[in-house]
Amino acid sequence: MKIDGEHFRTIWLAGDGWSVEIIDQTKLPHRFETVRLETVEESGRAIKTMQVRGAPLIGATAAYGVALAMRTDPSDRGLDAAISFLAEQRPTAVNLRWALDEMRRVLAPVVPAARAAAAYRRAAENCDEDVETCRLIGEHGLGLIREIAAHKVPGEAVNILTHCNAGWIACVDWGTATSPIYQAHDAGIPVHVWVDETRPRNQGASLTAFELGAHGVAHTIVVDNAGGHLMQHGKVDLCIVGTDRVTANGDVANKIGTYLKALAAHDNGVPFYVALPHTTIDWSMDDGFKIPIEERGAEEVLSMTGRLPDGSVATVDIAAPGSPAANPAFDVTPARLVTGFITERGVTQDSRDGLRRLYAQHTSAR
Amino acid sequence: MKIDGEHFRTIWLAGDGWSVEIIDQTKLPHRFETVRLETVEESGRAIKTMQVRGAPLIGATAAYGVALAMRTDPSDRGLDAAISFLAEQRPTAVNLRWALDEMRRVLAPVVPAARAAAAYRRAAENCDEDVETCRLIGEHGLGLIREIAAHKVPGEAVNILTHCNAGWIACVDWGTATSPIYQAHDAGIPVHVWVDETRPRNQGASLTAFELGAHGVAHTIVVDNAGGHLMQHGKVDLCIVGTDRVTANGDVANKIGTYLKALAAHDNGVPFYVALPHTTIDWSMDDGFKIPIEERGAEEVLSMTGRLPDGSVATVDIAAPGSPAANPAFDVTPARLVTGFITERGVTQDSRDGLRRLYAQHTSAR
Repeated sequence: MKIDGEHFRTIWLAGDGWSVEIIDQTKLPHRFETVRLETVEESGRAIKTMQVRGAPLIGATAAYGVALAMRTDPSDRGLDAAISFLAEQRPTAVNLRWALDEMRRVLAPVVPAARAAAAYRRAAENCDEDVETCRLIGEHGLGLIREIAAHKVPGEAVNILTHCNAGWIACVDWGTATSPIYQAHDAGIPVHVWVDETRPRNQGASLTAFELGAHGVAHTIVVDNAGGHLMQHGKVDLCIVGTDRVTANGDVANKIGTYLKALAAHDNGVPFYVALPHTTIDWSMDDGFKIPIEERGAEEVLSMTGRLPDGSVATVDIAAPGSPAANPAFDVTPARLVTGFITERGVTQDSRDGLRRLYAQHTSAR
Repeated sequence: MKIDGEHFRTIWLAGDGWSVEIIDQTKLPHRFETVRLETVEESGRAIKTMQVRGAPLIGATAAYGVALAMRTDPSDRGLDAAISFLAEQRPTAVNLRWALDEMRRVLAPVVPAARAAAAYRRAAENCDEDVETCRLIGEHGLGLIREIAAHKVPGEAVNILTHCNAGWIACVDWGTATSPIYQAHDAGIPVHVWVDETRPRNQGASLTAFELGAHGVAHTIVVDNAGGHLMQHGKVDLCIVGTDRVTANGDVANKIGTYLKALAAHDNGVPFYVALPHTTIDWSMDDGFKIPIEERGAEEVLSMTGRLPDGSVATVDIAAPGSPAANPAFDVTPARLVTGFITERGVTQDSRDGLRRLYAQHTSAR
């Protein structure tokens, strides 16, 4: 997508043909800076310190990390060491392990002298595949937005609410929940996005608002409390969110607070869609309430980071000293509240059958 | 209620018998400081700068402001001037005007020489009436908590979720939503309160958590996004919130986000109660969606105030420069989602008939 008119991905091969550049997301939304990665160690650090974040982008960065490692030590030992090192940086990230397994599968049979070239090739393919998956999600979701726009007075914006950041900066390009929005915008359909702040880590106010603004998409930040009120007053035409895991029966684990928005959408007849690549479907589970929910540190709730008047970035404590806090990071939206799924293979209903029909190939393989 | 074991109201006559002391709420939760008011101008400033806040407390401070004015100029002109000056400080506060009208009604027929004494007397009565109203709300609400406690393993806490601050520091003592909680705690019933942060102004994390902690009530701050997840997992036995206005049919205007919690409570079979004095019922309206909703400044959404590591208080900007935000301050929870009302006259259902039965006196007077 674009930042001030210039096209960017979140990760790309530098002009020198071998080093890798990324957007430093720890600086967003306060500063836009890119960082050059020249070694596997630097790739690992970028993952660990969350200069890159979002499952697809973590995977893409790890793949390039292996490629950088192969430049200096393409031996079997070198390959093993690079993969172990990278895997440790975010131990719970599923895409990280998937990307590393894929690099091992491709590189293990290749003679060491040819491994660097093969690794760069596979890392680039990995990026392109992610871009294509996200582009297809957007293409399918675009149909939903077009339909709503067709019932509006010409020129009136389609109002879409999203929660957290399932945007292009969590992927390589396009994003998942944001892909239909960018495609509608690029197609000249007027869209306006209500961006949930998404406490405690504020990914909406800081990341989604940043990327929409940089691409030129009209948007308004609201506190997480406001979405229900907006829906009651007809100010939301459509909700689109991302997801961390969808169970086979269509239950959706996503950032804490998603469930509240789905309830409000249901209560007000607002369509509630979940955008995802098929890799996010967990066919082994048929009840979302079995998904373990990560409990994160209280300090995320008790503090807030932002810019001081002098432009420096600081963290402030917002509660009385000693106040306790709890921080469940995700919640589960039951399938009955989900209008449908937007995937790279099409749009489907939230039932197990709908998902299975789209992914018949997978189902038949089980 | 208590602060570190010492009993406080939010406003009281100082030891000198004429000046008035308040807790400076602009310093909470970061510092506990009291301020002495010696003139009507100081009373007005305390209201305007939100050193005092909450409808009942604003009214109580204005009443004492009139008393302070009567000490120096008890003439008709002096009375008029004091009332006009105080009324201007928060032009939309209903209780402010109610308290000032009441002071005028009591003082106008009194000879100037006796006005100061009469004003102090009425201001003190105003406070005592508010305390008694809140105490009765708590007494009635206590029954609900007792009932839940009776079905628990002895010693297991009753978990209550509240939103925003309808606490004693918004009143003179006890609070509305918090009054049943304090009375349960004081009666030895184990209670634990889930405190919604309540973005954008954070009254939950900063004020409710402060006052519960200071009185010794177990509590945990959560982001506004978390309540639905807690209810899905059986971690909330009861919701109690306050309200800014209830229409005759039982619709409830309260801090933005209340509606989302009511939806989640309804979806999970958690009782959802609204605590209020009868003065909050607007008998002239029978549809909550006719209540005008205040739209506040975007800067409340785009910034956050707290303590820096050195203990100083600072405000940080949390979004990209130029990001737009909207800030509706209240929402309306339809009567169908409200289990019942806790008032100073008893607990009732959310229907127009339930409210009218409790307040038959008022109804028959219309």
